[in-house]
Amino acid sequence: MSEPLRLGIAGLGTVGIGVVRIVRQHSAMLAARTGREIMISAVSARDRSKDRGLPIAQYDWEDDAITLARRDDVDVFVELIGGHEGTAKHAVEAALASGKHVVTANKALLAIHGHALAEAAESAQRTLRYEAAVAGGIPVIKALMEGLAGNDVTRVIGVMNGSCNYILTRMENAGLSYAEVFAEADGLGYLEADPQLDVGGIDAAHKLAILSSLAFGTKVDFDGITLEGIDRVSIEDIRAAADMGYKIKLLGIAQMTGRGLEQRMQPCLVPETSPLGQLDGGTNMVVLEGDAVGQIVLRGPGAGEGPTASAVMADVCDIAKGALAPVFGIAAAALKTSTPAHAQLPAPYYLRMSLEDKPGALAKIASVLGDAGVSIDRMRQYGHEDTAAPVLIVTHKTTPDALNAALADMTGTGVLSGTPVALRIEPV
Amino acid sequence: MSEPLRLGIAGLGTVGIGVVRIVRQHSAMLAARTGREIMISAVSARDRSKDRGLPIAQYDWEDDAITLARRDDVDVFVELIGGHEGTAKHAVEAALASGKHVVTANKALLAIHGHALAEAAESAQRTLRYEAAVAGGIPVIKALMEGLAGNDVTRVIGVMNGSCNYILTRMENAGLSYAEVFAEADGLGYLEADPQLDVGGIDAAHKLAILSSLAFGTKVDFDGITLEGIDRVSIEDIRAAADMGYKIKLLGIAQMTGRGLEQRMQPCLVPETSPLGQLDGGTNMVVLEGDAVGQIVLRGPGAGEGPTASAVMADVCDIAKGALAPVFGIAAAALKTSTPAHAQLPAPYYLRMSLEDKPGALAKIASVLGDAGVSIDRMRQYGHEDTAAPVLIVTHKTTPDALNAALADMTGTGVLSGTPVALRIEPV
Repeated sequence: MSEPLRLGIAGLGTVGIGVVRIVRQHSAMLAARTGREIMISAVSARDRSKDRGLPIAQYDWEDDAITLARRDDVDVFVELIGGHEGTAKHAVEAALASGKHVVTANKALLAIHGHALAEAAESAQRTLRYEAAVAGGIPVIKALMEGLAGNDVTRVIGVMNGSCNYILTRMENAGLSYAEVFAEADGLGYLEADPQLDVGGIDAAHKLAILSSLAFGTKVDFDGITLEGIDRVSIEDIRAAADMGYKIKLLGIAQMTGRGLEQRMQPCLVPETSPLGQLDGGTNMVVLEGDAVGQIVLRGPGAGEGPTASAVMADVCDIAKGALAPVFGIAAAALKTSTPAHAQLPAPYYLRMSLEDKPGALAKIASVLGDAGVSIDRMRQYGHEDTAAPVLIVTHKTTPDALNAALADMTGTGVLSGTPVALRIEPV
Repeated sequence: MSEPLRLGIAGLGTVGIGVVRIVRQHSAMLAARTGREIMISAVSARDRSKDRGLPIAQYDWEDDAITLARRDDVDVFVELIGGHEGTAKHAVEAALASGKHVVTANKALLAIHGHALAEAAESAQRTLRYEAAVAGGIPVIKALMEGLAGNDVTRVIGVMNGSCNYILTRMENAGLSYAEVFAEADGLGYLEADPQLDVGGIDAAHKLAILSSLAFGTKVDFDGITLEGIDRVSIEDIRAAADMGYKIKLLGIAQMTGRGLEQRMQPCLVPETSPLGQLDGGTNMVVLEGDAVGQIVLRGPGAGEGPTASAVMADVCDIAKGALAPVFGIAAAALKTSTPAHAQLPAPYYLRMSLEDKPGALAKIASVLGDAGVSIDRMRQYGHEDTAAPVLIVTHKTTPDALNAALADMTGTGVLSGTPVALRIEPV
């Protein structure tokens, strides 16, 4: 058996304790699977005296994560502090500069500074792994980087934030408004301290940026993501979508187009019978599409102590076995700079509007859509008691530009009551 | 960049040609991802002159796969011949003995001779990889062996034969009998030359045996599998199960119990709203459960040129990057010999029977079940025109032994018309 692999763990929150627990409970199993003992040399966190439910006194303590990252008896620095600036970033940089491998669950750090860290890792001839940063316990980084290595990846699509999916599912099941369910989820502690990270789509977009880089061999480009959260999703749209056979999901989508890399995080409709449409509650799902494999779907818990620690340990075990691939799958110098592409791929759209109860109102809308080259697949007008008639339209495939032009023209017709809602129906 | 990795490909059927296609089309991509050129030195197949839609004259030709396996200019022997005896086995053995790595899609070979081959690979200090042998394009071997390396795996469950799932789905959708759909599928070339490999569950059981070994660190034990195919699944049961909210799937299930390793391949009911219940057509799905991660679900194409070649290339790329793990995840000498466990884990059961139209008939059945300790969760008796009344029962959780005892006692009641059907409802 080779030398032990010695971990330094910075951050003893839920995930950090989960990692300590696995190393303690499964030492024989881990040694059998990796051919080495995996041990913890030292740990670091904000509060040494806190009761964490596990004895940690046997591990050396460092008040400072950066000092931990540089210790001679640490082979792998496990960064579970979080945040894309400050201690987490400096400690990861210090670890690489000191010749340590790094395992992290920090999606923000990778999404913002991933390229620089990949360069730092390469020049130190060390690796930086981050399975836990995307979709929790689902081994999606491994599936994409290694399992689909023979594929030209054509699209990545997924539900990557369990809190948003929980909110949307709960709205539908309980018939509650977004504001009501948001307050409920926040009260239950389901949301980040800054809830915009969840409901604004930022957390999911960090994950999407990482997957895009792996899928398309491009430098991670968080700023290139077209970003929209779930706060404008209404219970009316959830109900109307269901009536037409769809579910509303906050989808992250990345695909390479002739005009550049299209990365979108936005609420979309998907068929209720599709795997994405059937994903209820806090679970994550990532769909990977490649030219050889076609489509594979990965589903599992996106957060929590066990799932996230499981992903951290997968990286630790790979490092123990000597797997030292480039951080984003190919050499950092070979990663291309992508041009962010304005969303132009055609798709069907869902439109919901209220029409003034005037003769010819629907004809005017239909005419505006037709003039913009947008053809109608299905239309429903509902019975109504007030002066505005609810109308749902599902269009045939059209481009976002054509749709936006039609929406702009609609406002001039004088038959709309309020602003129409338009949501993309993502082909899955 | 390191030395090129040179392949010798034996078998140029659908999958072999798929591998050749990827190596030709994606040479730059593969080199970027592995740091090495991946090239084909030589190929072997039965018929040199056959038109395969791709030029293969540029590769050296060997009539004999064993000669190919021993060539000095081959680093990785890619075995796509199939079958667990004869040429495939001898060529893989020859390749390992000659110091080549092996990549194979041959589930039968691994299920029957996996342990001996793992020992041969280890003593040669080479690896043998087989991602394509289980669930086609889904990287399930990688997910289980590497992605869940930090987990004590608790259960593996899956739909691992697309042809069986196609048949069951088609029966339900078209309302056709098993015999009708079997004839149709056979005529369309959807089934193996020996259809029992598919519908008898043998092909799926080969895959289950491999997953069991990886999951539980045991020597592969195909003979330890309790095996039942789909030929006794009737359209009446598919309809009745649907009526109670279930789908019938041919499930492979492996779990370690206190009495040994339980491996079953059998038609089971699953809730129609579960991921397994929603899996229609020829797609595969594997559910992996671990103590840390909880449950992850992997879904994708289980066969076909592209998906299977994608899996072969994942293995080739891993070898190119130097990943040389033990064949079944831990050293062959450390693999335990498992005791096959008679299925004893409790589950609810579905029962369908016809009762003679006599007073007290249902009471007698209920009484027999109660006496055997089997309690009834739901029961439906349907209207009928002949003298026998169709009855469906869903039991609470009970053991197979208790259920079988109850079934034996039922025959003595004199109220049954024909033999009852009993199917396990697998908790998922």
